[in-house]
Amino acid sequence: YKIARIPGDGIGPEISEEAVRVLNRIGELYGHTFTCAEVDAGGIAIDKYGDPLPEEQLEICRKSDAVLLAAVGGEKWDDLPVDKRPEKGLLRLRGGLGLFANLRPAIIYSELKAACPLKDEIVGDNLDILILRELTGDVYFGERGGDDITYSSDLMNYHDYEVERIARLAFESARKRDKKVTSVDKANVLATSRLWRNTVNRVAKDYPDIELNHMYVDNAAMQLVRNPRQFDVVVTGNLFGDILTDEASMITGSIGMLPSASLGSTKLGMYEPIHGSAPDIAGTGKANPIAMILSCAMMLRYSFDLETEAQAIEAAVKAVLKNGARTADIAAGGKSISTREMSDLI
Amino acid sequence: YKIARIPGDGIGPEISEEAVRVLNRIGELYGHTFTCAEVDAGGIAIDKYGDPLPEEQLEICRKSDAVLLAAVGGEKWDDLPVDKRPEKGLLRLRGGLGLFANLRPAIIYSELKAACPLKDEIVGDNLDILILRELTGDVYFGERGGDDITYSSDLMNYHDYEVERIARLAFESARKRDKKVTSVDKANVLATSRLWRNTVNRVAKDYPDIELNHMYVDNAAMQLVRNPRQFDVVVTGNLFGDILTDEASMITGSIGMLPSASLGSTKLGMYEPIHGSAPDIAGTGKANPIAMILSCAMMLRYSFDLETEAQAIEAAVKAVLKNGARTADIAAGGKSISTREMSDLI
Ligand SMILES: CC(C)[C@H](C(=O)O)[C@@H](O)C(=O)O
Ligand SMILES: CC(C)[C@H](C(=O)O)[C@@H](O)C(=O)O
Repeated sequence: YKIARIPGDGIGPEISEEAVRVLNRIGELYGHTFTCAEVDAGGIAIDKYGDPLPEEQLEICRKSDAVLLAAVGGEKWDDLPVDKRPEKGLLRLRGGLGLFANLRPAIIYSELKAACPLKDEIVGDNLDILILRELTGDVYFGERGGDDITYSSDLMNYHDYEVERIARLAFESARKRDKKVTSVDKANVLATSRLWRNTVNRVAKDYPDIELNHMYVDNAAMQLVRNPRQFDVVVTGNLFGDILTDEASMITGSIGMLPSASLGSTKLGMYEPIHGSAPDIAGTGKANPIAMILSCAMMLRYSFDLETEAQAIEAAVKAVLKNGARTADIAAGGKSISTREMSDLI
Repeated sequence: YKIARIPGDGIGPEISEEAVRVLNRIGELYGHTFTCAEVDAGGIAIDKYGDPLPEEQLEICRKSDAVLLAAVGGEKWDDLPVDKRPEKGLLRLRGGLGLFANLRPAIIYSELKAACPLKDEIVGDNLDILILRELTGDVYFGERGGDDITYSSDLMNYHDYEVERIARLAFESARKRDKKVTSVDKANVLATSRLWRNTVNRVAKDYPDIELNHMYVDNAAMQLVRNPRQFDVVVTGNLFGDILTDEASMITGSIGMLPSASLGSTKLGMYEPIHGSAPDIAGTGKANPIAMILSCAMMLRYSFDLETEAQAIEAAVKAVLKNGARTADIAAGGKSISTREMSDLI
């Protein structure tokens, strides 16, 4: 399996190294070979080439079976114009690889419930939400206008086929879970949301076994706090998804634990932790490698169809948590171990 | 003082009646006369005139000193096209009265902390956030395109003067509070957000005594859950404000308690509870009138400059809560009183 590995910025290189060790161990145990090509993207690519994603680097990703991205960005590059910033590398990766669906599981590990900001009776015992965020459309890629000083505009737009493919993925995902899809939009105001809702309704006809309901985005932002257990699969557009996935991750209280997958119409996917590059702790050995390691599990599952191997990683993570191993971010002030020690245990 | 009163739909008429009683009592105690002209807007106006806000009704509002709106909308009108729905009446009121700032205090009453979904150590003892949502620009009023079936678009846009006036209001508000403004945008992606950020920075030069920081909207959605106490005044655009104000209200756990004000460049403002029309409990005498009554307090403060009278209402609400009076929504399953009994006590 050929993997394009993007260490990126901040704690990115450290955690991405641990991911490789875990993959190599999986290779030993199950007889696979994972080869990694290192790709520069984000701040490091700006520093080296003056471009957050040079075309040759994107090309390496295109030729791989999967992309493993640690984290990009940091304050260092914050004053650059938007088109030259590390985040642009991320957006170009999504576009350049045709990734249209960002899958973000928001789950709570019972061992880490103390870190959850919501009361116990609200989150219950096994909160497990899967949010699917559309990645190719919406106000992210529409035409920009104006001068950023007196008037500016951004075009929000959607094509039916963009909505259709992510809606299908949502219904397919729900079939393997609790058979419930909540589609989030702002159809009482936006034309794009009416298109969204009409298309989701049309696709729903092919999935009579799945319960579908629609929710306005403002209400969804409330319901995630009020009663997150009502959700199984949530599907929404690029902008609302950006906001709601972050809110949902924070609700779990375990942001250093959560992986994500960005998928397209081929097997080539991109896998990354949802946390950022945390430049403040880079190099200190304090970073939590778990989200990165669980991103490898998602890669094994979605790009390589290695479900057993994916589950082996997930079981290992659960086991070390159960045994009390904690990096500083999840130690609640108690005893903590280093990045390397954590991945050794896993 | 001439008030245009919009009872609207669902529980609207019931709670708006209680508001009038409270205002009359204030009039008796402090020697003012409040006269109310009843205005039809929302679902009831659709049923009567086929239009959620007939021009004559808007005209009554324009000629008043303030508008008191209870709640509009309900499932009954959900199948109508967007332009014919009750919510459109609300949007036309905002536009027609030139209201550009929606003020939403998110506060927690210590007596009601049990209803707050967040853990005690997260919310602390006196959470008090003021969110200012811009109301005239953004994707709410930009041009729509497409057919709602194969392709659709919405134009998100902002002019500098729209951002400037709400930014000033935010800094002025912060001066009377903890001197901290958080401006929320998505400047790493959107041109409108760059305009927003540039303008806020320019206005900030006139307020060197106020601490300003910028936050991306996805991060803000997280921080409201992780550590809401970091916020004093939050200022943001129309769409992000729609989402974040609802999230912030839910964090307090007291959605039946929270009022809001929509202000423009004259004294004429519109005041309304943040909760909806709750058609399921309409006519049962169970509705909580407090958000409506506190909306009157905001009206006295912002439109009539009657600060003492506003505080009298707020103190009365605190006192009845302290004495244990609860409507069903805040009774946590315990003993509850009716809408009328609650306003009698207040
Ligand atoms: C960095 C930014 C462009 C990006 C986004 O908004 O998509 C990030 O917030 C994310 O969610 O991956
Ligand atoms: C009903 C709807 C148009 C409205 C809005 O989005 O502004 C509502 O959600 C609100 O926040 O007042």
